[in-house]
Parts: sequence; C-alpha cells; structure tokens
Amino acid sequence: MPGGDYSPAMPERLVVIGGDAAGMSAASQARRRRGADDLEIVAFERGRYTSYSACGIPYWVSGTVDDVAALVSRTPEAFRRDWDIDVRTRHEVIGIDLDRRTVTARDLEAGRDVVEPFDQLVYATGSVPMRPPIDGIDAAGVYGVQTLDDGAALRAALHDDSTRRVVVVGGGYIGLEIAEAARLCDLEVTVVNLSPTPIGTFDPDVGEYVADAVRGMGIELVLGDGAGCIETDAAGRAVAVHTASGRVLPADVVVLGLGVRPNVALAEQAGIPLGTSGGVRVDRRQRTLVDGVWSAGDCCESVHRLSGERVVVALGTHANKQGRVVGINIGGGYATFPGVIGTAVTKVCDLEVARTGLSEQECRQAGLTFVTASVDSTTRAGYYPGAAPIRVKLTAERRSGRLLGAQIVGRDGAAKRIDVLAVCCWNAMAVDEVLGLDLSYAPPFAPVWDPVLIAARKAWEAVEADIRA
Amino acid sequence: MPGGDYSPAMPERLVVIGGDAAGMSAASQARRRRGADDLEIVAFERGRYTSYSACGIPYWVSGTVDDVAALVSRTPEAFRRDWDIDVRTRHEVIGIDLDRRTVTARDLEAGRDVVEPFDQLVYATGSVPMRPPIDGIDAAGVYGVQTLDDGAALRAALHDDSTRRVVVVGGGYIGLEIAEAARLCDLEVTVVNLSPTPIGTFDPDVGEYVADAVRGMGIELVLGDGAGCIETDAAGRAVAVHTASGRVLPADVVVLGLGVRPNVALAEQAGIPLGTSGGVRVDRRQRTLVDGVWSAGDCCESVHRLSGERVVVALGTHANKQGRVVGINIGGGYATFPGVIGTAVTKVCDLEVARTGLSEQECRQAGLTFVTASVDSTTRAGYYPGAAPIRVKLTAERRSGRLLGAQIVGRDGAAKRIDVLAVCCWNAMAVDEVLGLDLSYAPPFAPVWDPVLIAARKAWEAVEADIRA
Repeated sequence: MPGGDYSPAMPERLVVIGGDAAGMSAASQARRRRGADDLEIVAFERGRYTSYSACGIPYWVSGTVDDVAALVSRTPEAFRRDWDIDVRTRHEVIGIDLDRRTVTARDLEAGRDVVEPFDQLVYATGSVPMRPPIDGIDAAGVYGVQTLDDGAALRAALHDDSTRRVVVVGGGYIGLEIAEAARLCDLEVTVVNLSPTPIGTFDPDVGEYVADAVRGMGIELVLGDGAGCIETDAAGRAVAVHTASGRVLPADVVVLGLGVRPNVALAEQAGIPLGTSGGVRVDRRQRTLVDGVWSAGDCCESVHRLSGERVVVALGTHANKQGRVVGINIGGGYATFPGVIGTAVTKVCDLEVARTGLSEQECRQAGLTFVTASVDSTTRAGYYPGAAPIRVKLTAERRSGRLLGAQIVGRDGAAKRIDVLAVCCWNAMAVDEVLGLDLSYAPPFAPVWDPVLIAARKAWEAVEADIRA
Repeated sequence: MPGGDYSPAMPERLVVIGGDAAGMSAASQARRRRGADDLEIVAFERGRYTSYSACGIPYWVSGTVDDVAALVSRTPEAFRRDWDIDVRTRHEVIGIDLDRRTVTARDLEAGRDVVEPFDQLVYATGSVPMRPPIDGIDAAGVYGVQTLDDGAALRAALHDDSTRRVVVVGGGYIGLEIAEAARLCDLEVTVVNLSPTPIGTFDPDVGEYVADAVRGMGIELVLGDGAGCIETDAAGRAVAVHTASGRVLPADVVVLGLGVRPNVALAEQAGIPLGTSGGVRVDRRQRTLVDGVWSAGDCCESVHRLSGERVVVALGTHANKQGRVVGINIGGGYATFPGVIGTAVTKVCDLEVARTGLSEQECRQAGLTFVTASVDSTTRAGYYPGAAPIRVKLTAERRSGRLLGAQIVGRDGAAKRIDVLAVCCWNAMAVDEVLGLDLSYAPPFAPVWDPVLIAARKAWEAVEADIRA
C-alpha cells in the first residue's frame, strides 16, 4: 500500500449485502475506525445506486425534485475513492454459506457468479414490496415505488401525455404520497384501500379526518375494498383495477403502494435466525444469532419501547442508526440501538399527518388500557397570520397517565410537533408532567398554550375522570 | 341565587391583583371548581383590558395583526357575565394589609379608593419595564411596550407620516421584535445594545450569527454600547439618543426594549417575602410564605430545573400555568408548578431564534463544566424545496454527557425544534441517548438525520473526545 504501514497480519474481511442506508452506514462507520490495512470492505448492491433516499422517490416522481442525483447521498465511485470500500453495484447476492464463511454474488451485467469470503458479514437487504397474488399484477402499466429504477419508470409514465387516470393500490404513507405526486401531474387519481380509513396505522377517527382532507384535494378514495384483479388489454397492458367488491376503476397507470416486508429470503436459506416479527433477529448491538453476522435496516427487527414487542419498521432513520451501530461495533467500538417507538410523518398536498407511540389498536394488542383526548387548535397564535389548524390526539394509560401514543393531523407547521410527544413517550412521561413542560412560545410559533400542552391537559382530565368513575 | 342551592355559610372571598394571564387563569380555574355561592372573586386590573397577549404587541404595532381585540382572549365583560368574576378595570391596588386581610384599590376613573376584604389573595402584578435613570427618559417620543395602551401609542407613532428614524434601546427579544415592526413600517431602525451581541441571553457565537442576519435585514446594530441620555428639542420632544460612548443617533421615535423586572413593590410594602431572585417567593403550589396569599406570573420566582437556582422568567406560558396551579389549589384541588428550563423563541423578520436550558455563561455560574457542539444543516431534506438553513448548538455536561442547553438559529421551520431539546433537557437525557431518539422523518419535514440528532451525535463525540483527553 503506497504510504501505508506494512501490516504483517492479514486484514479482516467485511462483506456487506445491500448498498443503501443501513449497509453503507455500517461500512463507512467501520472504515472510520479501521483502515484498509486492518479491514477490507466489499459491499454488494443489486441496483445501480448506493445510499439513496427511497423516501424521496415520490417527490422525484412528481417533479417536486428535479434531479435524481439529489436523492443519492453518496455514489459507488465516492465510496471506492474516498472510503476505500469496494462497492460492486449490479451484483445480487444469491447465497450465504455460514460454514465456509462465503457469499455468492451474481454479476447481473456479466452474468457470472463470484464467491467472496468474509470474516464479518452485514446483512442489510432492506425490504421487498408487497405484491398481492392477483391476476394482472405483473402486467405492463403496473408500477412499484421501491427503487430508483422503479421511480424512473413511474415518473416517465406519469408524465406521458397519454396518461390520464391513475389507480393507486394501498392508502398508506407511500400510497398517499404517490397519489399526491399524480395529482401534481394533473391526473385523475383513485386510491383503493383495504381498511375503512386511509393510513390504517392511525386510529380510525384520525383516519377519517385524513380521508376528508384527501378527498378535498380531488383524490378519490375507495375504502374498505381491495384490488381483486388487474384487467389488461390485448397487448397485455393494464387498463383497469377490479376491486374485490366488484368496482371497476379504469386506469392508464396502476401503482402498488401496499407497503413492504423484510427481505429475509437469503437469511432464511442460510440459516440466519429470524425473530417473531418476521425480521432478522438481532440484539441491541445489531448482532444476529450467528457469530460475526450483523443485520441492520428494513430487514431486521427492533424492540418497540412502549409495547416491549419486537417489530419490523421500514424507515430510513432506523436504517441509518442501526447501520451506524453495526459499523461502530465492527470498528471496535461499542454502540447499541435503543429501539423504536413508532414515530412517522407524511405530507399529502398540504395536509400533514404524524404519529408516535402506540395506536389504540396497538395498545389493545399489548394489553394496555387507556383513555384518549383530542383537541383542535392552531399552529401559531390564533391572531397571527398563517395560523393553521392542528388536531392533536393523545392516548394515556389509565391510572398512571403515562403517555402511550400521539397522533397529529393539520396543515403547515403541525406535524413536526410529533417529535415533542415522541420524546415524552420515549421518557415514559405521564400526561400531567407533559402539561408542565417548558415549551417555546411566541405568537409566530404557537398559541400561549401550545396545542401539545392543551392536549396533555385534556388527556390528564380524562385520566382523572376515569379514576373518579 | 336563581336556581342555586342556598348556602348557609358565608362564601369565601378571593381577591386577585392583576387581570392578565396569571391572575385571570387563577380566577377562572378557581371558579371552575367552586361556584359563586362558595367563593366570591374580585379581580383588580390597573388597565382597561384583561387576559391579553403582551407578547402579541409587536405584531399589532407593526400592523401584522390588525385588530387589537384579537390580542384579548377574554374581556372583563365576559369574565363578569360568564364566570361570575367581579373584574374591576382601571383599579390600581395601592396597599395590602395582611393583618386586616384587606387590599386598598384606587379607582383611577373616579379618583377614589375602595377597601376590599379577602380570605385568599392572588398576587399577580406582572412585571415593570426597565427604565434607565437617564436624562430625557420621560420625554415625549419615548415609548414603552409593556401594555396595550403602550402599544397603541407606539403603533400610532410608527405609522405617523413624520416618523422616519427609530432608535430601539435594548437588543433582546422585545427590542428585536420592535425593530422588525419598525422595519415593516419602512422606517430606518437602529438598535442600541449593551452586550457585544444581540439577545445577550444567547451564547456569543450564536449572537454573532443573529447580528449578521439582523444587519442583513437593514437594521443597524450599535453593540457594546448603552443609552447615555436622550436629547430633546425645545418642545421637550426626543430627537436623538446619545450613547454612553458618545455616538449620537437621531430619532423621531425612541423605544425602550430593555426587558422587565418583577413588579414586587406592593408585596415588599405589605411584607410578603421575596426570594433571592428578587421575585415573590413561592413554593411548588405557588403559595407565598404568607398564609392564604398566592402568587403567579412575572412577579414571582420559579425553580430552574437544570441549575437548581431560583429565577424570574417573564413569559406568558409560565404565567398561564402558574395561574392555573393557583386556581386549582384555591379551588380545593392539588396542583404544582414543576419549574422552568429557560425555553424561549423569537422571530426577527425571517430569522428564527430559540433556546432552552442553560447558556454557557449560566453553566459556569452554576459550576457545571461542559463541552459544546454546533452543526449546520437544513430543516427539510436538502433536495426538497424550501429546505432552510438551521444551526443547532448543544451544551453537554462533561463525562456524563447530560444535555444542559441548546440554541437554534435558522429560517422557516428551524426554531420550533427547540421543543424537542427542551423535553430532552427536562428529562436530563444524555446526548448519546438523544442521538438514538425515534424522531419523525420524511423529506418535506427533515433530513434523514434530523439536525437535532446530528447535533447530538457531534456533542457525544465531543464528550468522548474530552474523556479521552
């Protein structure tokens, strides 16, 4: 090595499967702590890109973001050049041999397989989109939104002059974000959603607020109904979605936004144990049950701090943090991932929607009893220009008043307040303590009682009323 | 009483001194729990208004808010009619007799005094503006911004066609908010500030960022200099501010924005003990050391949860919460005020500035040693339209890493993130735990690593580096 010290021992060999947030965070954190003479790093990525923002795809599809390069935080070339990480894109890992400590990867361009030995392995394969096993699901004109390549195809389709009608299957975060993207392209949009309110991870009363707002944007909602099959024309191209209840929704473009499941097929084949959640089982240092094998990101499970359950949450934030933890640990440091509390946020046109902690349904599943309180307020002092509506719903444990969950819907400036409540949940604060918090106040930023505090006050009244009852 | 039960015992008598947030919150909370047959409530207010937003005055002065009525959350008539509270405006309490349990109030319209007996007394006199004892301070053309009447006078002056140049004495929150108001009226504005950076409660490095931004708005800053005297013309009208260093700043309007001190004169005369901070001493239930006498709002002291010191913080949020606590306690309930952590926020044109916890200077005074970290990031994903700059500075205790304070400066969407850090301070979280928080993420709301988390990561690195050093 030019200029490097000669190391008589063989460097250790780290193989990373998956070149997005989790895998590349792990690789670069490990590299920060150990030079190339001490740790060789090879990363396999099936696609063409590394470290890109999958969450940004809807905004690129709509044209809100112009340049796809903006979604890539670091290219394969940069990893090779600046980080001495041997990134091999268009390489799909097809097998892991835990006895021989090797992975087999297929070079998708050259069409041949390579076998790579490892001392340490990071399993960061992400998630795979849900695809219902219905007729027509693989037809031309049916799009996913998982990768940048998916995004490119959908973007082209939405901006095609012949496209007029779009049907989005799934009314969760991704489904609604894609629906907005299609509206921004001036298309007719219908969203089909199995549960009776959109974003089924929210409580039904909050979901109804969202449904009203989404309809107000000119998006048609078909609720409590699923996709039965996709009708195709003679050329095999999708022309309509038939719902389970028999409705026929004509479509030039069909988008699947049904959410994702952890990509664990390889792990299962290799004998890397999964957890009860269906994700790869890991401890707090992100170690799997196999020595020297780590996992991070959408493919592995996390502990939910409020329910104590193991869950799989596919989110870039967790992927980044878990990858960082893996990299520090491989690098010889000590780091743990503290778990999740189910915080999420999205924006549909100018409607902001956010949650943290447990929904009512999740409380019931966890055996927790609770009271709820909802308040309507404004994001700024009522008299200050730009004061926007905000609804805050809190769920508090009976008797103790411990904050179990929060949901927010509103307009400009509403949703990010969820983070305040996330920190309250994180610290197991009771709502009467939340009510006493010293939060910032000035008329351009909040009413003198911030909506979060008003909600806490009302939730505490509900706890007290329940005690007296 | 029509329809009411006849109560054989004499009702208890509550007298409230001060009809703004603290006093009227106390009165209305007490009323919620005890009817008029059980508790008579008399509230004296020197001015014409009750329960108004003093914090809103700068926005009314500038014309951002049109109607002064918007700043009044409840009128004296509403209190009398709907709450059975005998509000007497334009009545200034001039004496409290703790032995006889009476207050003496002067009817400012009629010019005569009334003596009112009390069983319970709420001392909620607020604060008085600082007025330096310099020549010309009482001249025509010199304005305060304490009451709605002050605001009305200043508003008229700023919108007068003959007004061109405004000098604001004091570069704290109020001073800068008034400077913005004057800029919005298209006036030439100079701010004179004693400390070398504006908003002296912020660390100097943050203050310099603010100074640059304020100058960029076309506001002249004269720093490290105070008002020496105010020059008047033959008619006794202010024409210029002479600074301590000898600069002459011509002015058609002079505004005093030097902050406030607790209005404790009456309490001192009556023998209601003050605390070390100079505010009325109270316990966690807001009881003064005199039986049956309570205090709330800008006139009383609070415990700072991070330093353990007793402090006086004049803020509407605390006044409302403390008043609520007093009212619940008088009403027969049980409530405590949990203390403050120094959270504050302001907006100057499009610059947002916020803080929580202890400044570096306050840490030193409290004997705490610390490391700091500052990061520059964006309020949304860097590629998302409207991503605005944000700087987050954290102060963490050496060794433990406990978060001691945070300061934020930035543009649209920056400042309210201070609340997340306020809850972290409140819970005495260490910065490495902050780094693990499950905060909300989507490109329209944050980068995948929220600026708060990036700052925590950097602060934790500083803590670790300090341990190794």
